[in-house]
Amino acid sequence: MEKAYAMVIEEYGKELVRHEFDIPQPVGGEVIIRILASGICGSDVHVWKGQDKRSHLPQILGHEGIGYVQAVNTGRKDIFGRELREGDLVVWDRGVMCKSCYECLIKRKDYNCKSRWTYGFSKSIYDYPNLNGSYSSHMRLVPETDILQLIPREKLKADEDYIPFVSACCAGTTTACAFEQSRVESGDTVLIQGPGPLGVYSVLYARERGASKIIVVGGTKSRLELCREAGADVVIDRNETTAEQRLAQVLDLTDGRGADSVFEVAGTASAVEEGVHYVATGGEYISAGIAVDVGDVRLNWFSDVARKNTTIKGIWVGDIKNTYQAIELYRRHKDILDRTITHRIPLENATEALRMMERREGMKIVLIP
Amino acid sequence: MEKAYAMVIEEYGKELVRHEFDIPQPVGGEVIIRILASGICGSDVHVWKGQDKRSHLPQILGHEGIGYVQAVNTGRKDIFGRELREGDLVVWDRGVMCKSCYECLIKRKDYNCKSRWTYGFSKSIYDYPNLNGSYSSHMRLVPETDILQLIPREKLKADEDYIPFVSACCAGTTTACAFEQSRVESGDTVLIQGPGPLGVYSVLYARERGASKIIVVGGTKSRLELCREAGADVVIDRNETTAEQRLAQVLDLTDGRGADSVFEVAGTASAVEEGVHYVATGGEYISAGIAVDVGDVRLNWFSDVARKNTTIKGIWVGDIKNTYQAIELYRRHKDILDRTITHRIPLENATEALRMMERREGMKIVLIP
Amino acid sequence: MEKAYAMVIEEYGKELVRHEFDIPQPVGGEVIIRILASGICGSDVHVWKGQDKRSHLPQILGHEGIGYVQAVNTGRKDIFGRELREGDLVVWDRGVMCKSCYECLIKRKDYNCKSRWTYGFSKSIYDYPNLNGSYSSHMRLVPETDILQLIPREKLKADEDYIPFVSACCAGTTTACAFEQSRVESGDTVLIQGPGPLGVYSVLYARERGASKIIVVGGTKSRLELCREAGADVVIDRNETTAEQRLAQVLDLTDGRGADSVFEVAGTASAVEEGVHYVATGGEYISAGIAVDVGDVRLNWFSDVARKNTTIKGIWVGDIKNTYQAIELYRRHKDILDRTITHRIPLENATEALRMMERREGMKIVLIP
Amino acid sequence: MEKAYAMVIEEYGKELVRHEFDIPQPVGGEVIIRILASGICGSDVHVWKGQDKRSHLPQILGHEGIGYVQAVNTGRKDIFGRELREGDLVVWDRGVMCKSCYECLIKRKDYNCKSRWTYGFSKSIYDYPNLNGSYSSHMRLVPETDILQLIPREKLKADEDYIPFVSACCAGTTTACAFEQSRVESGDTVLIQGPGPLGVYSVLYARERGASKIIVVGGTKSRLELCREAGADVVIDRNETTAEQRLAQVLDLTDGRGADSVFEVAGTASAVEEGVHYVATGGEYISAGIAVDVGDVRLNWFSDVARKNTTIKGIWVGDIKNTYQAIELYRRHKDILDRTITHRIPLENATEALRMMERREGMKIVLIP
Repeated sequence: MEKAYAMVIEEYGKELVRHEFDIPQPVGGEVIIRILASGICGSDVHVWKGQDKRSHLPQILGHEGIGYVQAVNTGRKDIFGRELREGDLVVWDRGVMCKSCYECLIKRKDYNCKSRWTYGFSKSIYDYPNLNGSYSSHMRLVPETDILQLIPREKLKADEDYIPFVSACCAGTTTACAFEQSRVESGDTVLIQGPGPLGVYSVLYARERGASKIIVVGGTKSRLELCREAGADVVIDRNETTAEQRLAQVLDLTDGRGADSVFEVAGTASAVEEGVHYVATGGEYISAGIAVDVGDVRLNWFSDVARKNTTIKGIWVGDIKNTYQAIELYRRHKDILDRTITHRIPLENATEALRMMERREGMKIVLIP
Repeated sequence: MEKAYAMVIEEYGKELVRHEFDIPQPVGGEVIIRILASGICGSDVHVWKGQDKRSHLPQILGHEGIGYVQAVNTGRKDIFGRELREGDLVVWDRGVMCKSCYECLIKRKDYNCKSRWTYGFSKSIYDYPNLNGSYSSHMRLVPETDILQLIPREKLKADEDYIPFVSACCAGTTTACAFEQSRVESGDTVLIQGPGPLGVYSVLYARERGASKIIVVGGTKSRLELCREAGADVVIDRNETTAEQRLAQVLDLTDGRGADSVFEVAGTASAVEEGVHYVATGGEYISAGIAVDVGDVRLNWFSDVARKNTTIKGIWVGDIKNTYQAIELYRRHKDILDRTITHRIPLENATEALRMMERREGMKIVLIP
Repeated sequence: MEKAYAMVIEEYGKELVRHEFDIPQPVGGEVIIRILASGICGSDVHVWKGQDKRSHLPQILGHEGIGYVQAVNTGRKDIFGRELREGDLVVWDRGVMCKSCYECLIKRKDYNCKSRWTYGFSKSIYDYPNLNGSYSSHMRLVPETDILQLIPREKLKADEDYIPFVSACCAGTTTACAFEQSRVESGDTVLIQGPGPLGVYSVLYARERGASKIIVVGGTKSRLELCREAGADVVIDRNETTAEQRLAQVLDLTDGRGADSVFEVAGTASAVEEGVHYVATGGEYISAGIAVDVGDVRLNWFSDVARKNTTIKGIWVGDIKNTYQAIELYRRHKDILDRTITHRIPLENATEALRMMERREGMKIVLIP
Repeated sequence: MEKAYAMVIEEYGKELVRHEFDIPQPVGGEVIIRILASGICGSDVHVWKGQDKRSHLPQILGHEGIGYVQAVNTGRKDIFGRELREGDLVVWDRGVMCKSCYECLIKRKDYNCKSRWTYGFSKSIYDYPNLNGSYSSHMRLVPETDILQLIPREKLKADEDYIPFVSACCAGTTTACAFEQSRVESGDTVLIQGPGPLGVYSVLYARERGASKIIVVGGTKSRLELCREAGADVVIDRNETTAEQRLAQVLDLTDGRGADSVFEVAGTASAVEEGVHYVATGGEYISAGIAVDVGDVRLNWFSDVARKNTTIKGIWVGDIKNTYQAIELYRRHKDILDRTITHRIPLENATEALRMMERREGMKIVLIP
């Protein structure tokens, strides 16, 4: 009889261990998924290293999964009201929210729900739903999970590569939330710090908000080049410029004003301290994708914040709305976004993949069961 | 023949000197004002001490003025299209903007205009319009000045005290701008740091945005008491609590969430570092009224900004819209706001008044020519 | 053994019939309520007359209920995370939403959920949860119901009159939603058509949005007087003025501009056709509380909509956020809002109460089991 | 000596008459323009026919002009602070606003300014600045005119076709304003009624707001085809479908929901009555570009507005911000937008061009002096 398997952290920082599981039958609104691909996120390395407080061992990593419906009961629908059937390709919200608290109902920001738990982060394999991370062949999604159908089974094509959809799960979703909470408007100048997966998504979102000028600052030539192909007007290499030169260039590109919106997706405190200087008077600084303590940031409150009427915003995660937006963006810009997936590695080699991620090799590494 | 006079800074930190001027005739859209009262702002002390780069000596201070139209040409109107006549009581925008630049036209935030200059700050007595600060008996307003009629001359009453309108010029205007740029909505918890003039205005604006709970943190008992009378539900005395106790109390008052919006009108870096901890997940921190370098602020970027999805905003000044809002608020809450005017001092004693302000005596000191 | 009873529509337009029911035990997240009071809504008359398509006979009316927790299982919480206990006074969202569809998740407007069903409207007594309307001694709330604790049982006072909370359930909630979707800002002129329960709430919300001028147009002197006491600056009696006179008066009160925001809570097509003329250029017209076909409205598209840059918005209902806002507003303005409850009638006389409502006697009639 | 000339309406509906003028020297902030091209707008036909109340004969038509700076005084700048020099290619705001009234300052919507007057509409040739319409070889812009530099003189290329910039002046500007006032967000379905110049701009703006699905309804095959090339996913030909079929198709394309945002740029009352049915629950209907009385629109207030929580918005014009946005959009989509310019006609043949416009020949006809 077919078995599910998953790569499990038994001890922080050590080899992940292959565990086998019975494939459960779905009860009520549960959905059993056969995983197609699982992205590796920088946060996974932190969990693996024991640096994330949410972790409970032994645990299955993986919050960036897509897969096929393996089993589902009649009547279970996706967020568009489409009934799910065996074989449909789907994605789901990595977070599960209560939908009945102050954050969910009064502030209508369910990604801030205090009861939110996350597949691949919060639960051990002894906690329901057990198969709760995507470093696995199968997952069991709890009934409260928001699911989005990507391709109905009858439209799946044998020769199509669906794996890159996985880029939308985390990078695309968080970036979508960052842009949703931003004020970017037609004609603006947008500057992006960090040309990784969130940076490429940021360039595309900036274009799709009507930005007139898109500037990317980063340190990896190939990534900057991808950003340029995605639509960046100007890319600035950190390794070839000083901070003063970068600031001078940004001011020069904007008639001395600075950028209307700066998106920080580089993930360091020093990027923040540099980046706030790029913001125009009245502009905004959006920092997305920081998932661990990166230390303190020092701001001169008068010149960086008060005098410039600056808005600063931290973005934690996103929700299924943002995943929907990211998936749709992906469909429109598949040519660019497929190139963010630099490595496809067998799931059984997950430990090696985490080590590559730790060494910052590759842009987006994907595990294939 | 009647002469105008003004108290002039000839040397930083020294006695202001009484100068006499001819009262000019208005040319075109100019308006000559006979000053009724001029508020003293904390910023005035900084200019007087030579700590404000905008200053040019010899100079007349005063950007919080109200007064009567002394002379005006036919056809000059206020922002509501009401023709100005001799004797009308008016207030004006302390800033003069170009109304034709990126900030004014594209971003529609004229208070961020790069060409903005300010009565009482930016010009010496040798610069047109010479009588350009309200520490004076008369002022000349340039044609580009936005003017708001407060009371038409035929409705002025001999026994009415109009002087406290002056509180709306700067404290009320900046606070109005802070609330305009905030997201406070009906049912929210609002916390205010600093029970000075901006703090009292903040309590009233919070009420007029439907806040369900208003908390004020401060160090002066009489000011906290005024905030309570203005509508604060809870006041917390900094001198009777530790920072830990204050935070615990705020969390206790909000089911553990923190405040949806925190307004910092205390003016210190340490207030900011403490205040960001009061913000609820998804909430905002608005810092208004800081006009000089108050040093660096250290934020833990992960816990203070990223994880909490915090929005931080610095507010520099406001414009005539905000002055209009402040004036209207003043009319509705005259009983409370009149009490922020603690001292009325003859204009000729302006130097002594600045010294009182420096010693933080009094809440709002007003000069009367 | 104690029994529940409800007044049931067996035949449209006929006497309601008293039915008895066993009081169920709560299963899972269900909550059994002992009704304190049930408001009668204008919509109830339409259902009773057979004019509402949602109706299924035999049916219990009543979507404006408040009551005490009669029975609840451990762990069931209200939206603030407070565990519900027997005896707590609570209110609940009259609508039950799926929280997993496009409207709920992508547009984050759960009140527009296509699967929304409503207590007192959508179900017969044969449909679970059977005791599903508040014209009853007890109700069974399904687990998906959003509940708000009003008063914890230990703070209930024997001599306090809690019945008027009921005004917030429907009138207050819908008005809260109307204001949430409006753009009213500090200093605006707000005009309200219709001084009924929604009108009184509108006056209070307008004050709590900082309106500088509030005008109410209506036809009942006592209601207009209540609006004035609630804070309306000007009330205009439709029976003492022509439409031309009313428009002239509104323009005269606004320097010829018209009102920035007009709220239509009168419920007729003719009110709409008159009301759009009150809107200032760039202003908005918000129509709330219409629950049946009131016929066609004719607008001159050029002069009423295009030339004036008018925004028109229809408000259907609200959700628990809006109920929370309304409850909080009620707490702040109990003195005014208690007076909207004009009649308290024994539940057994529900048919007579519906007839009174049909004859438009009384402002808000409440049934007491 | 060089003379300016203009085609002047002396009598409504009759041949325009060529008048010669001295070319004035600029005084103060005035700018003298040598016209490169002038678009013909549908509104021009109404003025010519005597159907626009703003008209004063004898008058020069033309509010869609671009041209070269012929003469300017030192220090006159464009809205980006760039000093204007002879030879620069520029565009200007067709409207001149007071920038000091309630609409300009309090509501910050200067396009709603009550004192706004428009080049090519409001003034006769006897009114300053006389050369005040773009059906002319030269214009005199008053100092209050907001000007945007398109190409600095040193970057002008002899072989470049700059004439199509003219499409941004009116069609692009009004559409920009419509989108600025809309709520279109990433992932939305946008439907556009009317594939004329505003329709093509609408398709491009919808793409640049992240729309996932763009549907255009129209009656001209070639225009629908251009919309498809601009990015429309689906075009529906009104001549090949009934209204019922169109509605069915729209619902089918949107899982039964309808479009999140519908833009009406067709200009008829019947389009409005049909179009509101396309709007999804909670969606919006934006009507832009109607400049004359098109008669009454009948809406069923319950089903079209109240029950669906519909937002309806009329858009009158735009301002220099919107022109800036349109110009930037034009630069990014020159390939598509150039094709909206279907005819270039010598200025002296302006009357014939107006007749073509009246017969709806061509999409955008441009006059060349």
